[in-house]
Amino acid sequence: MSEPRSATLELARELISRASVTPDDAGCQPMLTERLAEAGFIGEDYPFGEVRNLWLRRGEGGPLFVFAGHTDVVPPGPENGWTTPAFEPTERDGMLYGRGAADMKGSVAAFVTAAERFVARYPEHQGSIALLLTSDEEGPARNGTRRVVDALSEQGIRPDWCLVGEPSSSERVADTIKNGRRGSLSGRLVVQGTQGHVAYPQFADNPVHRAAPALADLINTEWDTGNDHFPPTGFQITRVEAGEGANNVVPGSMEVDFNFRFSTEVTEARLRERVTTLLDRHRLDYKLEWQLSGEPFLTDRGDFIDAAVRVIEQTTGQPPALSTGGGTSDGRFIAPTGAQVMELGPLNATIHKADECVSVADLETLSGIYEGILEELLAGQMT
Amino acid sequence: MSEPRSATLELARELISRASVTPDDAGCQPMLTERLAEAGFIGEDYPFGEVRNLWLRRGEGGPLFVFAGHTDVVPPGPENGWTTPAFEPTERDGMLYGRGAADMKGSVAAFVTAAERFVARYPEHQGSIALLLTSDEEGPARNGTRRVVDALSEQGIRPDWCLVGEPSSSERVADTIKNGRRGSLSGRLVVQGTQGHVAYPQFADNPVHRAAPALADLINTEWDTGNDHFPPTGFQITRVEAGEGANNVVPGSMEVDFNFRFSTEVTEARLRERVTTLLDRHRLDYKLEWQLSGEPFLTDRGDFIDAAVRVIEQTTGQPPALSTGGGTSDGRFIAPTGAQVMELGPLNATIHKADECVSVADLETLSGIYEGILEELLAGQMT
Repeated sequence: MSEPRSATLELARELISRASVTPDDAGCQPMLTERLAEAGFIGEDYPFGEVRNLWLRRGEGGPLFVFAGHTDVVPPGPENGWTTPAFEPTERDGMLYGRGAADMKGSVAAFVTAAERFVARYPEHQGSIALLLTSDEEGPARNGTRRVVDALSEQGIRPDWCLVGEPSSSERVADTIKNGRRGSLSGRLVVQGTQGHVAYPQFADNPVHRAAPALADLINTEWDTGNDHFPPTGFQITRVEAGEGANNVVPGSMEVDFNFRFSTEVTEARLRERVTTLLDRHRLDYKLEWQLSGEPFLTDRGDFIDAAVRVIEQTTGQPPALSTGGGTSDGRFIAPTGAQVMELGPLNATIHKADECVSVADLETLSGIYEGILEELLAGQMT
Repeated sequence: MSEPRSATLELARELISRASVTPDDAGCQPMLTERLAEAGFIGEDYPFGEVRNLWLRRGEGGPLFVFAGHTDVVPPGPENGWTTPAFEPTERDGMLYGRGAADMKGSVAAFVTAAERFVARYPEHQGSIALLLTSDEEGPARNGTRRVVDALSEQGIRPDWCLVGEPSSSERVADTIKNGRRGSLSGRLVVQGTQGHVAYPQFADNPVHRAAPALADLINTEWDTGNDHFPPTGFQITRVEAGEGANNVVPGSMEVDFNFRFSTEVTEARLRERVTTLLDRHRLDYKLEWQLSGEPFLTDRGDFIDAAVRVIEQTTGQPPALSTGGGTSDGRFIAPTGAQVMELGPLNATIHKADECVSVADLETLSGIYEGILEELLAGQMT
């Protein structure tokens, strides 16, 4: 009854061959709309600016299960970093290579074939199954999932369960479920000094000299020790810049960009306060701008996580670890609706790198797990 | 007997009106060759690349007294920073304005008129008087004084005394003689890390985090305490740069440019060794390139400095301070020949700035001091 498993591979190849560098969808979404129409899914486009978003739903009642993902990919980087071209899907030694193979066209293909098999087996399933796809996950993420969620909320549509296909696995496929995410808070610090000639430092005030001990202090600070669900809050400097273009000039200012990935043990406000106190203690003359990309969220054990754990254990023989580590994902936009959000996808070792790849066997396993989770939650007859 | 003092002002105006932005001489040197021929100076051009250099000498025997200077100027910068155009010499309130007025066309004019008056009074003076002029002091200083000194050395010509006309004065004209200069040693440090996603710092190695404590250490290091002639060795970071252009990426490497201005209490080799030891102690993975711009040099008290001090005290009523502070000058290329080198020129407050200027009265004073020094050293009859 079910389609041959290689349907997932074929669809992943088809998606990878479309060079959908963010925010370009490169025709992925229309192709999926057409394909899933045959399985009874009704598509609605939610374009915002140059971003394409797609809401595909089968069924009208609740509960509502959503597969969430993205069709855009990060740029491939230098061509010579790739063994075979980034947008020519290629199989070697059981792996499928290409930009997006792991993040996350493989997962999108696995969603689709899982849904196709499931509705073929359970045409009268409970509730609704939906796919939420955007072409703005790897970019600024302003016109993507965030806005679709807003638009759906205005129509009273609220997912009960949302499975995000982000590559959550570490060593083996489905060894890890992300049942939450840390918050992300960025800061741009400008330390003011006084420009001058290096030969006359007494008339200058070197902002790099001012800032270096404060940065060393920030780097050495323990922000918290995490908790049962979250690793300790982390701090990373992502950019420093100072210099006037001449090696005999003391720079007039220094810019520092940094980012916190924070647990539920601290708050955005508390982090801001601690950074400010530290900078003030170092008597820096500075400006500081903050940007909150996402509050931390957590999906505790319950019907959704339990269903996934059961299916994964049956499929792979091992229960998955629950983790809240790693980057932000569009889950941060869906969690505030009250949905239970989980991320479950392939290995993340090669994402955003040259020679990104996914195991062909893992794709099949993943599609099977997705199908199993649907079965756990929606296989019953509609009431 | 002497020319009217205003000859210095007239010549300074004539030089300033030639827009000799480095390395362009704009006809300054040919004009001086022609003029000083009348006073018995024989000119030799030493062009290298696009740089013009001029060696003008009167007399054949020793001792050899050299006025060293440059005809090039730094660019004027934005026009609207200037009250009157940079290359239109203008007098206001006793000041002569124009690019190069203080650095160092005023001094060159004062050299010339001092020499003219001196040889008119002492046509049979002892030894030789020479002028060494380049159009590459404000530029890379590769094809200027350095190469002329080499060419002269090959001919067995070695100055005994060299007076560089750099603006050495601080509050009053001739309040300071530079009787040496600190060395200048630059380094470019590249700290290697491992690029990665900020959300997975365990897979990255942040070079900024590695470097910050080492930089704080370098900044806090006392390199020496100076000595009677030199202020303590100074260290300044002139550039830092790290960042991959995305705020979710841990940078792969960090670049740091720095510069030492160093005393005779340390050596280039010792500074390099201490920096390397410190970086190694911080276990950095780094590359480090060094560039030595000049060794420190010192002209201790002796006939040359003593003559200048006497003349200045007679002229201004106050003895000059001896200093080795400030930037590098072409003195660094002349000192290694064994010459006694001194820098003596006008106030340096406006150099390299808009509305650069020199006091008209100071120019006359300076020319008189130069003449007095010639008199102290070379007035006796040739033996």
